Amino acid sequence: MNLNPIQLFDAESSTFTYILHGPGSTDAVIIDPVDRNCERDLRQIERLNLRLVLVLETHAHADHVTSAGALHARTGARTAAPSGCGILPADVQIMDGDILEFGLNEKIVAHHTPGHTAGSTCFLWRGNVFSGDTLLIDGCGRTDFQSGSSDALYDSITTKLFTLPDDTLVWPAHDYKGNSVSTIGWEKAHNQRLAHRNKQDFIALMADLKLPPPKLLDVAVAANRNLGLPLHG
Amino acid sequence: MNLNPIQLFDAESSTFTYILHGPGSTDAVIIDPVDRNCERDLRQIERLNLRLVLVLETHAHADHVTSAGALHARTGARTAAPSGCGILPADVQIMDGDILEFGLNEKIVAHHTPGHTAGSTCFLWRGNVFSGDTLLIDGCGRTDFQSGSSDALYDSITTKLFTLPDDTLVWPAHDYKGNSVSTIGWEKAHNQRLAHRNKQDFIALMADLKLPPPKLLDVAVAANRNLGLPLHG
Repeated sequence: MNLNPIQLFDAESSTFTYILHGPGSTDAVIIDPVDRNCERDLRQIERLNLRLVLVLETHAHADHVTSAGALHARTGARTAAPSGCGILPADVQIMDGDILEFGLNEKIVAHHTPGHTAGSTCFLWRGNVFSGDTLLIDGCGRTDFQSGSSDALYDSITTKLFTLPDDTLVWPAHDYKGNSVSTIGWEKAHNQRLAHRNKQDFIALMADLKLPPPKLLDVAVAANRNLGLPLHG
Repeated sequence: MNLNPIQLFDAESSTFTYILHGPGSTDAVIIDPVDRNCERDLRQIERLNLRLVLVLETHAHADHVTSAGALHARTGARTAAPSGCGILPADVQIMDGDILEFGLNEKIVAHHTPGHTAGSTCFLWRGNVFSGDTLLIDGCGRTDFQSGSSDALYDSITTKLFTLPDDTLVWPAHDYKGNSVSTIGWEKAHNQRLAHRNKQDFIALMADLKLPPPKLLDVAVAANRNLGLPLHG
């Protein structure tokens, strides 16, 4: 049975946060929560009569700070982050292929998808893929900082995500145009950066984007490697 | 089986648009689409590999213009609007208790909930209520213009919506604080305007809100009564 997640939007950084829960249990998982929305997200979980048990990060973000540490402190939920992201205080260091269980037999499968960052990981749950900054709707994450690699991103998207079933729903970490969700089938056929483009063309395209550095790059990555908690020393 | 809708957000008017679809069919329904998002919404439906068959309005909006007429012209989808809203060109004039069918035995039940406007109607589908401007998350629609009535709104919410099962998901037409969804149980217990308040107190509260008139009141309501299509004469 396909179940959609609850999708929440942070207008300041155009970030999506997701809440997952399955039948037969009040356990809930949150993916990529944003610091300034901590109260909102806790209230959202309360409104659904759920209990937060797990906080997941797709990567160490450069454009906003996570509330993972705060959510852990407030609720006792475990924190989990991809092992390659340097988020050392996380309770769980996620490896490629790991299965994270919650609720009544709910399973989240981790797919290591390097490219936006070396540790970036996507999560598959009930026909939904939470694609982080790896695959965006009609786009993809940038690769020009923080261990990014266009070569690796191309392989991650085309060999790991585009081999999922066509009707897999794609829930990205960001959208800047008011979109909510896509499908693997649509992205494979139409994604303007990846459809009908070989790796060489993709690398050339990504090298020529001329994007300004993320405003929060220096502070956000360091903070996110500490689950968004204050840094000492 | 509870299925969540796809929720889309219009940042300019803080309006939610919803896309509904069930298993075994590509038929889709859209609720409260916004004119400037017409292309986005068509693309969203295309990305999900769906076919739009029905456009539903919860009421004649005062804060944005619908794309119902444009969507009908582009896709052939039927348009449906509550009979008390004066949206005369709609293909279907919805009455209280009407059941709108689509897809493979999907049923949407109309509940006439006057108060925000005299014609305002909520739609129930698979444990989800699309509550328009009748019930908002921790709030409710205003009642000070366009056939509004605090007396009627109180009755609509407390006798029609608050008698739905507690775990019914509440998907409002607007949210101004980044929230996505609530439940009947939470709103009954905690809604700051309605929980633990009798009708007399509610009417006094609503009379004292001192809200400015909606910026688009004059143009939007007239346009929405014509499904958002240009007015002649």
